[in-house]
Amino acid sequence: MPKISTRASSAQSSPLRKLIPYADAAKAKGTKVYHLNIGQPDLETPAEILEAIKNYDEKTVEYAPSTGILACNQAWEKYYQDNDIDLKAEEIIVTSGGSEAIAFAMSIVADPHEEVIAFEPFYTNYNGFASLVGCKVVPVKTNVEDGFRLPSKEDIEAKITDKTKAIIICTPNNPTGTVYTKEEMQRLVDIAQEKDLFILSDETYREFNLDGDGRTVSMMDFPEVADRVIVQDSISKRFSSCGLRIGCLASKNKEVIACALKFGQARLSVATVNQVAAIPALENSAQLVPPVVEEYRKRRDVVHKALQKMDGVTCLKPEGAFYAFPRLPIDDSEDFAKWILEKYENNGETVMIAPAPGFYATPGLGKNEIRIAYVLNCDDLKKAMDLLADALKKYQK
Amino acid sequence: MPKISTRASSAQSSPLRKLIPYADAAKAKGTKVYHLNIGQPDLETPAEILEAIKNYDEKTVEYAPSTGILACNQAWEKYYQDNDIDLKAEEIIVTSGGSEAIAFAMSIVADPHEEVIAFEPFYTNYNGFASLVGCKVVPVKTNVEDGFRLPSKEDIEAKITDKTKAIIICTPNNPTGTVYTKEEMQRLVDIAQEKDLFILSDETYREFNLDGDGRTVSMMDFPEVADRVIVQDSISKRFSSCGLRIGCLASKNKEVIACALKFGQARLSVATVNQVAAIPALENSAQLVPPVVEEYRKRRDVVHKALQKMDGVTCLKPEGAFYAFPRLPIDDSEDFAKWILEKYENNGETVMIAPAPGFYATPGLGKNEIRIAYVLNCDDLKKAMDLLADALKKYQK
Repeated sequence: MPKISTRASSAQSSPLRKLIPYADAAKAKGTKVYHLNIGQPDLETPAEILEAIKNYDEKTVEYAPSTGILACNQAWEKYYQDNDIDLKAEEIIVTSGGSEAIAFAMSIVADPHEEVIAFEPFYTNYNGFASLVGCKVVPVKTNVEDGFRLPSKEDIEAKITDKTKAIIICTPNNPTGTVYTKEEMQRLVDIAQEKDLFILSDETYREFNLDGDGRTVSMMDFPEVADRVIVQDSISKRFSSCGLRIGCLASKNKEVIACALKFGQARLSVATVNQVAAIPALENSAQLVPPVVEEYRKRRDVVHKALQKMDGVTCLKPEGAFYAFPRLPIDDSEDFAKWILEKYENNGETVMIAPAPGFYATPGLGKNEIRIAYVLNCDDLKKAMDLLADALKKYQK
Repeated sequence: MPKISTRASSAQSSPLRKLIPYADAAKAKGTKVYHLNIGQPDLETPAEILEAIKNYDEKTVEYAPSTGILACNQAWEKYYQDNDIDLKAEEIIVTSGGSEAIAFAMSIVADPHEEVIAFEPFYTNYNGFASLVGCKVVPVKTNVEDGFRLPSKEDIEAKITDKTKAIIICTPNNPTGTVYTKEEMQRLVDIAQEKDLFILSDETYREFNLDGDGRTVSMMDFPEVADRVIVQDSISKRFSSCGLRIGCLASKNKEVIACALKFGQARLSVATVNQVAAIPALENSAQLVPPVVEEYRKRRDVVHKALQKMDGVTCLKPEGAFYAFPRLPIDDSEDFAKWILEKYENNGETVMIAPAPGFYATPGLGKNEIRIAYVLNCDDLKKAMDLLADALKKYQK
């Protein structure tokens, strides 16, 4: 048998995947499982999107242009305008979710074996895309004690080598829930200028600013690095339409957009019906998004309150996105996550959480941390957090 | 400004793209342009697909599983069963068009800077995906005189180095319209076994077997290389639904599927509504596909007859897919394609063709060849071929 490539065989499996058999087994026994493990919101997709799908009435589902359907690019422009971000339709390539934008961006900034700096714990899939395109994610550690603030300039610069081509940042952050301040963002801007790097800015959760008014700070707020910034974006979370797979890659750097278009031409186009369906949502973000954020604010409060009551749990108040990333008084979060599914239940109910090691690139880190995605309604969330508190007590015995 | 990666800046632009301004200018002057330049069929998408889109009634458009929606994988299995190909649901990863399957397959077989053999002229986008994932397509030339048959074993082996990891084949072929025989396929099978290579088999046009009964020979017909074959497939052409972006990667090699799933997990999922919509088409290929193939057979005859009447044109009868790849008595097909759009019209009509150099990796090749996609109805196709014949005569003067 021929040998699989090293990058593919060494690529990271979804860290959550190995827990699925245990969740399935629990369900097979009749146990109700509350899912706090994945970022799949329960909120309904806006009627505008669902109606646009139903109303699609072309006779032939044709390829869309590789840049995106013009009206969809223009809807992204309107969305950015409504969010005080200066990005024009021609500075945007519509992508298959934010995912494709990340893969394109990595390949545009880094040749094979070159490096991109990320702050761990980080969105697991950065590793998967790095494997796919043959570059490397180099982690710089952040810590639960200070709410996963960005490291100092010195600590970041210590990881920069002549192979480093970019810094990737996700704000509000998946998995930590941290919203970076203007000062933290400025630190990256300064480093990018001094070290001549690109900045890949994953702003999928832009409006999920749970302790502030309006959106979070965007890398597009720093005109001095306009040529260095590549935004990855997605309608998935803010419009609760993960399965539509509509995102975009955006940049003021014309050469970046020209290269993204070349990769876009290779894959021909993003699904046509889906782009059409995304348009009315993007055009109406000012109406559609605030109630969503308000709902997550309530959920955040439920989760935070519950975590504060648990003995030995460390977790600053999550500021954004819809994740909490607590440290628990345990030694092995993978074992704990498995145990809750396999050995624990309370009145026929249990809970599924994401062990943190999958979000770290450095082996051994995150063994006493978990990620909680608060994607359930407040009542279910309360029940799920009660189960977690109860399970934690019993697990410690 | 930081430097774009070499692979991105040197990636190939769509060779057709530079002609678009000329086509737009012709249209702006009121000239009707018959498009023979792209593989976008005019046939209607099956009602089954369009109705499934209209009937989608989930309240939240959620992520699908990274493997694909089970019912969609099972529909692919049913499709393969109906086409006498042994591929089970669990040997299939649903992908975003055949495109994503190609990118995944290249990254699974080749590490950065490693090589994949392709027969030129070849599907342009193999180059784009190779750039994206950082590997290299090495061309072996085929020729119009013999209808672009596969080269001899010796000629193929001459291009194999210790960096070669796979051979990629597309049958029926885009862009040449050639259908490889069992003997030609066996030649690749032998080489793959002797040189320990993977075979990436792009079988998007499988049923477009215009001179035979039933489907063309599949790489899956060679059980001795079951572990080496990775099939890339797509519903785009056979169900005239290019814009739905549903394809698959399939293999009997469990390690290949495990790696494809890891890349699949990185991009989370393929669009949900689209997978649901593809199911009824895949389940009914035996009814839906034969009339499509019959229509293309008629069109092929129109194109072939017209080409035979043109002085100095070489083109064996295309056997499959929906392309003809004639050699014309000209020196520069890019200039000719531009000239027809810019300088030529007949009764307010003109035609757009694809110059061949974009399908060759070797610089300088294809300057007297073009690709014709017969994706218009027979009446329009006759008019378009008349225009091409007339333009060719006038261009030669």
